[in-house]
Amino acid sequence: MSQRQPADTGIRKLREPVVIEGPLGIIAGGGQIPCIVADSVTARGLAVHIFGIRGEASEDIERFPHTWAKWGELGKLFGTCDKEGCRDLVIVGGVSRPDLANVKFDFGALKHLPFIVSLGMGGDDQVLSSIVGFFESKGYRVHGASDIAPELLAGEGNLSKKVPTADELADIEIAYKVVRELGRLDVGQAAVVAKGYVLAVEAAEGTDSMLDRCAELRRSGRARGRAGVLVKAPKPGQEERIDMPTIGPVTVRKAAEAGLSGIAVAAGRVLMAERDATIDAANQNRLFLLGRNWDD
Amino acid sequence: MSQRQPADTGIRKLREPVVIEGPLGIIAGGGQIPCIVADSVTARGLAVHIFGIRGEASEDIERFPHTWAKWGELGKLFGTCDKEGCRDLVIVGGVSRPDLANVKFDFGALKHLPFIVSLGMGGDDQVLSSIVGFFESKGYRVHGASDIAPELLAGEGNLSKKVPTADELADIEIAYKVVRELGRLDVGQAAVVAKGYVLAVEAAEGTDSMLDRCAELRRSGRARGRAGVLVKAPKPGQEERIDMPTIGPVTVRKAAEAGLSGIAVAAGRVLMAERDATIDAANQNRLFLLGRNWDD
Repeated sequence: MSQRQPADTGIRKLREPVVIEGPLGIIAGGGQIPCIVADSVTARGLAVHIFGIRGEASEDIERFPHTWAKWGELGKLFGTCDKEGCRDLVIVGGVSRPDLANVKFDFGALKHLPFIVSLGMGGDDQVLSSIVGFFESKGYRVHGASDIAPELLAGEGNLSKKVPTADELADIEIAYKVVRELGRLDVGQAAVVAKGYVLAVEAAEGTDSMLDRCAELRRSGRARGRAGVLVKAPKPGQEERIDMPTIGPVTVRKAAEAGLSGIAVAAGRVLMAERDATIDAANQNRLFLLGRNWDD
Repeated sequence: MSQRQPADTGIRKLREPVVIEGPLGIIAGGGQIPCIVADSVTARGLAVHIFGIRGEASEDIERFPHTWAKWGELGKLFGTCDKEGCRDLVIVGGVSRPDLANVKFDFGALKHLPFIVSLGMGGDDQVLSSIVGFFESKGYRVHGASDIAPELLAGEGNLSKKVPTADELADIEIAYKVVRELGRLDVGQAAVVAKGYVLAVEAAEGTDSMLDRCAELRRSGRARGRAGVLVKAPKPGQEERIDMPTIGPVTVRKAAEAGLSGIAVAAGRVLMAERDATIDAANQNRLFLLGRNWDD
């Protein structure tokens, strides 16, 4: 069986770094990405101010100038932005979609009630575009983490020691097709295919939860043999500034637990902030990790 | 808000009952449907012989003339068919997709090794079409349960006391679109949409498992409010003779546990063998149950 082995070309597609005025405001959800972005920015001599969303962001953000705010404390957020001189914002890190019925809004937030109510309806894309549009309407510039720190994007080509076989490349093509169609319908960003069979498709549950399900299918004998690829890519027209697909060491470990043989991501379109740890996890678990060219 | 209330027209689309020679052979997976089909056939004065797949079929099949066979005992199956004079077959009931590596084949099965190996690859549609084609190549006629007992199909119109609101009808339209696109890619038969947001999409895990996931999303606060519709429909070009989408009281109860407000199925294209129990479950749980016109 011939192997079309992709070249290990590393990162090809870089975006131009943007120019930031004043400290960069980082609205931080969970995980390490907010701090990684902050490290990247401060390493270049720029200032940051992190707004940690209570219950979502890691305490690690306290390494940087920061303010904690709860869901709904929009007034506090805008007040601090004004005080700190933040006009440029990045919104990064995982957040659970909050149940608006349980969010307590501060006085500053109540002024924006029509916007908040509009968040209660629609798919991710609509909600996220609303959020970006809302901050822009207040005069902020909203940047993607990938614009601020383009070195955090997964590059093109084979990033791991293991390379996909021809059969695995065929599964990748099927999964890409599924993810593309799902994306057009604003459903999800990921799918798992094994030997031509679509094992799982991501919707609201997220990629980690989808991989747990694949592991369960394997344990129950409904997925056959050790095989399968995870493909992750953005939705066409997705608001990539605040909802870029992300891959990290946890994704890799969960893919390994699900018995998959590798992962393919849309090159230049997926955040891989913990780059070394992600590649190490792939090599340790003998998974391939491929950055594949992706056209919307 | 206006409600386009569908008329309760009951079953509209009936297929012509087929003519069976000799006893009808029923290859039975799990659940009550094999016995319900057998009851329907015997009530019309026809004979049946049930082949229970060991580990899948319910012991209730022993009410009828029957033979137990394991996965892989194709020789036993063909031998019994010959002895009993079965030339017409129905394949019904849920089965877990067997791990071929763990199936023990009898001598009669080994003669069909190329066919068996072909089952190891591809999506459900390919595998199921192979199975039908295989039995047909041996001179059997393979019928759908819905051809044998068309009264088991979900009809068109509103089947429950509750009717969908305009918002719920809008969610149904989105879910139909998702299911249709997924079907074209041979992924799954069902999706859940709440307030325009695609909560879950079915692939290999099956509808019940997908509904459990929706219940989990709700418990974790990631699905908002009590809302959402389940839509179930066949894949375009699906081998409906042995893989017709199915809905029953368990589906309804799981939809209720997931906090959904109702279920819509493709009228005339979805098996609802436990008709009364399914409608009762919908009424008890205050879910709507709608048979919606479906064009491939």
